[in-house]
Amino acid sequence: MTAELNTLFEFLRFPSVSTDSAHSGDVRACAEWLVNQLRKMNLTVDLHETPKHPVVVAKNTHVAGRRTVMIYGHYDVQPVDPLELWNSDPFEPVIHDGKIWARGATDNKGQMLAHVLGVEKTLREVGELPVNLTFLFEGEEEIGSPHLAPFLLHHYDDLRCDVVAISDTGMVAPGVPTLGYGLRGITCCEVVLRGPKRDLHSGLFGGAVANPASAMARLVASLHALDGRVAIDGFYDHVRDLALWEREMWQHIPGVSDADFLAVTGSHGLFGEPGYSSSERTWARPTAEVNGLTSGYQGEGSKTVLPAEARVKLSFRLVPDQSPKEILAKVQNHLEWHCPPGVELEFIAGHDGKPYLTDPHSPFGIAAQQALRTSFQAEPVLIREGGSIPIVQTFHDILGADSLLLGLALSDAQIHAPNENFPVENFEAGIRLNQALLAELAK
Amino acid sequence: MTAELNTLFEFLRFPSVSTDSAHSGDVRACAEWLVNQLRKMNLTVDLHETPKHPVVVAKNTHVAGRRTVMIYGHYDVQPVDPLELWNSDPFEPVIHDGKIWARGATDNKGQMLAHVLGVEKTLREVGELPVNLTFLFEGEEEIGSPHLAPFLLHHYDDLRCDVVAISDTGMVAPGVPTLGYGLRGITCCEVVLRGPKRDLHSGLFGGAVANPASAMARLVASLHALDGRVAIDGFYDHVRDLALWEREMWQHIPGVSDADFLAVTGSHGLFGEPGYSSSERTWARPTAEVNGLTSGYQGEGSKTVLPAEARVKLSFRLVPDQSPKEILAKVQNHLEWHCPPGVELEFIAGHDGKPYLTDPHSPFGIAAQQALRTSFQAEPVLIREGGSIPIVQTFHDILGADSLLLGLALSDAQIHAPNENFPVENFEAGIRLNQALLAELAK
Repeated sequence: MTAELNTLFEFLRFPSVSTDSAHSGDVRACAEWLVNQLRKMNLTVDLHETPKHPVVVAKNTHVAGRRTVMIYGHYDVQPVDPLELWNSDPFEPVIHDGKIWARGATDNKGQMLAHVLGVEKTLREVGELPVNLTFLFEGEEEIGSPHLAPFLLHHYDDLRCDVVAISDTGMVAPGVPTLGYGLRGITCCEVVLRGPKRDLHSGLFGGAVANPASAMARLVASLHALDGRVAIDGFYDHVRDLALWEREMWQHIPGVSDADFLAVTGSHGLFGEPGYSSSERTWARPTAEVNGLTSGYQGEGSKTVLPAEARVKLSFRLVPDQSPKEILAKVQNHLEWHCPPGVELEFIAGHDGKPYLTDPHSPFGIAAQQALRTSFQAEPVLIREGGSIPIVQTFHDILGADSLLLGLALSDAQIHAPNENFPVENFEAGIRLNQALLAELAK
Repeated sequence: MTAELNTLFEFLRFPSVSTDSAHSGDVRACAEWLVNQLRKMNLTVDLHETPKHPVVVAKNTHVAGRRTVMIYGHYDVQPVDPLELWNSDPFEPVIHDGKIWARGATDNKGQMLAHVLGVEKTLREVGELPVNLTFLFEGEEEIGSPHLAPFLLHHYDDLRCDVVAISDTGMVAPGVPTLGYGLRGITCCEVVLRGPKRDLHSGLFGGAVANPASAMARLVASLHALDGRVAIDGFYDHVRDLALWEREMWQHIPGVSDADFLAVTGSHGLFGEPGYSSSERTWARPTAEVNGLTSGYQGEGSKTVLPAEARVKLSFRLVPDQSPKEILAKVQNHLEWHCPPGVELEFIAGHDGKPYLTDPHSPFGIAAQQALRTSFQAEPVLIREGGSIPIVQTFHDILGADSLLLGLALSDAQIHAPNENFPVENFEAGIRLNQALLAELAK
């Protein structure tokens, strides 16, 4: 086994589960191990306390006139349950079928350490880096990065940079280098419809008072037109059209055809906004999704109640130039306007995040493409992502820097699930990618 | 305390909870106590075993040429939890505010024992009854009477009768004698809509595949027209119109006005089929009700999943001359026809029961009215009930006998809930009612 893999295995053995307070000591030990690795590379390293898990910042000596590049990653991991579904110990990495199997192998220790080891290799081979580098590694990504935005504000002077590089997203297919240049935003809410003051006997009262579950069904159905478009007034007002080059390029990206979406989801059929492919629908068009629906009796068999209330959890994925606050106001207005008679509506706003879009043909974008081309020996594809990574917009808003999303995760990486894995070749490509990226960004 | 109340207290002290196997011995002890009471009255009593709890049958000496009357009741009770909400021990009856407080006080021990003690009093005072009497008391009503229909078939010759009397329904208001002559039927089903093979990340896949929760909302909304009518093709085909006398009488019944329905349910507004009052909607019009709705994430906060499936539990209250089987077929047809694209529908049929209607102006109905008038010294009201009591239709189908529903339960009796209670005056009226009823039915 290579020295690099040995180091990764050490990193993966820490059960740095950030959400579980029983693992607080493991998260800290992992951060301290990381500090030690970075110090061995002669970087200036600081472990910063937060109210929960520490942030690790490492820099080479910054020299005026050079580009300043921040590389962001996270050393915390998701919980491992259900443990019985793992084929091997999640915190004792093994290699088989050309992959590393462990919690965090892909998300994010493997991808993040590839950058660290790329820097280590460049320093070893060349003696110095071509750019001013800042590593920013947090231990709270899996719990929503609650302290990272305040940390950026407090350390603004220390963390200013020209561009941010992040390897925490996906590759469309094995061996296909992938540059992400957009993310969807999000806004969430919960709606409660209340009818009778308690669950009623559906025989004694059914037919005379509004059933909150029936009312909820009508209300939720009103969110979409029959053809799949979102039917909220003004919902599409500020949606930026897809560029022609995007639609053309995306047609030829492997692994994201309509047939691929159908196979990966195991769904009974594709369905969505008319006139768009599955990749267009998920990367560049907004949605209204029901995440949860609950009312009345849900156990086995039947219980003939007329429920006192019904609840729905909704989330809306947003694209440029939609504003989460403006969309949420339109959603609330729609729901209140369409609320059926006989029930009372409570609207509870949830979290939100802005959509993100940068230009992959900007100088930094072109540098990233060239680095991907060099390290994978293949032509990179340019994609947006359907998910939301609020921290990317936060880097933009606080540091004024765009992010390059250089994802190395495959679709079968099982992140957040049992048997998480990361191909050894992706780990090695990540090391090369870091070296090429810093070289390209320096130009 | 009177001897009658003493006997009722003895009866109420048995924790004869039929659903809980830990109480099997208590259910049996209660049946044996009942056998003993009935034997003391010189009735011929049999305790019949079933696969679970025994049936008790008691008769006087049947004489040819007299009417044969069956009085049905049940000696089992509902569980008592949550126990902490009771103001006194549910199995140690107390009297205050003119009411008996105990589990089973109204449902059904108090009402049933009033009939037993009415017969006892008549036998004591007159020496014999004016009719051939059969008491049929079961211990499984609260678990759906699973063995009563087979029992009736096996003992058909022994149980034939001209009419059945049951005191296990409601009075519209205190002091208002109430004769029930109709019940709604029911048919139930559960529907599952399946989309992706597992819950999906709503960012990565939202917009490209059908969301089963959204599809379910549209499907459930299709069950009703906007005005509240059921929108299933042919649903109202065989619904028998209300008689003019019913609509006129029901307008003047105390306790069942629209305002009463609103107050009792604490609902935010009445809603239902246009052109009918609340009592008409619940007693004589069919419904489609959602009893439960479930999909995706239902915990605190948000989890942005695109759920793999959604489930709904539906029940339909039916009126004469709707057929449960025919309606269920129409429901299934409607749901399959309206199922949105991209999801697979599974239809699971549930239990059913036919609607029941008899003529309150038949000779037996008039006898029951006269008995109510005599024992309450007030003019009886004639109602249907919105609920379903399948055993009533079973008596009709197997024994060929109509049932007189002589309910003594008040709306605040808290049956099936903590602090069940029964007014002492209703208990005493029940004893008088039994005496008057047998006298009237003998005519």
